[in-house]
Amino acid sequence: MAEEYVQSLARGLAVIRAFDATSPELTLSDVARKTDLTRAAARRFLLTLVGLGYVRTDGRLFSLSPRILVLGYAYLSSLSLPEVALPHLERLVAEVHESASVSVLDDGDVVYVARVPTARIMRVTIAIGTRFPAYCTSMGRVLLAWLSPDELDASLERSPLERLTPRTTTSPAALRAELDRVRAQGWAMVDQELEEGLRSIAAPIRDRSGRVVAAVNVSSHASRTTLEAVRRDLLPPLLAAAARVEADLHATGSTDSAARR
Amino acid sequence: MAEEYVQSLARGLAVIRAFDATSPELTLSDVARKTDLTRAAARRFLLTLVGLGYVRTDGRLFSLSPRILVLGYAYLSSLSLPEVALPHLERLVAEVHESASVSVLDDGDVVYVARVPTARIMRVTIAIGTRFPAYCTSMGRVLLAWLSPDELDASLERSPLERLTPRTTTSPAALRAELDRVRAQGWAMVDQELEEGLRSIAAPIRDRSGRVVAAVNVSSHASRTTLEAVRRDLLPPLLAAAARVEADLHATGSTDSAARR
Repeated sequence: MAEEYVQSLARGLAVIRAFDATSPELTLSDVARKTDLTRAAARRFLLTLVGLGYVRTDGRLFSLSPRILVLGYAYLSSLSLPEVALPHLERLVAEVHESASVSVLDDGDVVYVARVPTARIMRVTIAIGTRFPAYCTSMGRVLLAWLSPDELDASLERSPLERLTPRTTTSPAALRAELDRVRAQGWAMVDQELEEGLRSIAAPIRDRSGRVVAAVNVSSHASRTTLEAVRRDLLPPLLAAAARVEADLHATGSTDSAARR
Repeated sequence: MAEEYVQSLARGLAVIRAFDATSPELTLSDVARKTDLTRAAARRFLLTLVGLGYVRTDGRLFSLSPRILVLGYAYLSSLSLPEVALPHLERLVAEVHESASVSVLDDGDVVYVARVPTARIMRVTIAIGTRFPAYCTSMGRVLLAWLSPDELDASLERSPLERLTPRTTTSPAALRAELDRVRAQGWAMVDQELEEGLRSIAAPIRDRSGRVVAAVNVSSHASRTTLEAVRRDLLPPLLAAAARVEADLHATGSTDSAARR
């Protein structure tokens, strides 16, 4: 495949990814530095993206334009899952007063496809498309737990288990044991393994054939709740919400493309 | 700029855009046909995208993977607007039992950056990133109404006023008169100019400097309401929601990148 590889496309997509939440506006030099391109090459890619309407510039600073959303729009709009899940996430958030999300698995990461934040002033800002490592998140544990043994082996080989907090499970054997427990009990709870202070609990969403295609979670701050309170107060409404999402998903009749993997 | 243009990047992005909600899975021939590329070229772009993880394939059918969302994620996550607006959209939808959205202007189109659908069974599926022509939508009229005269002239020159329904305003003079009315009254109502049966009403969202950076709307089916009922029942809660979004947006303190245009 080496001779088939279109390097200019890969580099152009890298230029798009150089922009992020902490640096939404970049100079030509910033882009060159972040992408390891020469200034001349970075300039050609940026001007091409400006010409296509994906990037805006005032002559010095460059930023992404709303047109960039069309690239992900085709994927999102082909999923019935976010639209189906949203009203149920809203009801769940109204019940438990914590943020709720739905995600799918992609290459060792969970990717958020729907999210309803709480109205609390202090809340984690997570947008659609956000990625976190699967092994240390509750939704990730749910999505890994129902992989086939071969798929799980492949996923664990690709993604090293990094210690993100003192509590992160980094032993593959311990993770596998935890995934067995998740599969047996039907849900996953993760306590501060991704980030200190963050607890979450997740449940699977199955398609009509019974295959787990997504996960739904509720997250909470450790300072606000105990683990026992999470299980007692958040798990029942979470499982009820997962069941309602599944019922609606099966009723839509169409094969959901979240199931295409 | 002609010699600066990276054609491979433009073509690769066109390959990504070949996928849409009605055809989320495409064969190599489909992609070649939709992008006017040779099969050999389409194959090179697709395999590059597969190698980068943006596209998946079973060997015959190609589809976008969730990774594609990272391209729009940088843009969305740099906006505080969707996160700020969402709880207020939820409250508005709970009050009026109709779908509500927030959008920004991009090159003659409105682009949805936040949306809360109603729980009605029959509802329009509109995902984040959806685009509609500004001139015939309520949010577009709001966003056009507060452009400077130069910006408005440029926008109207670029975008021809096509007749999408028998009611669409296609005369530039009539549109300008309507935009004057919108600016004077502080909101826009559009009755079945984008699509038959669809009515919507929109209000501006201003940044701290008073500049209109986004619009919020509520949409309804003509069969469910009269125009007078839309004005009487939907306008007051809509204006209240716009005021709450503005208050929160101003309180966030940071310059919102929705304001970078």
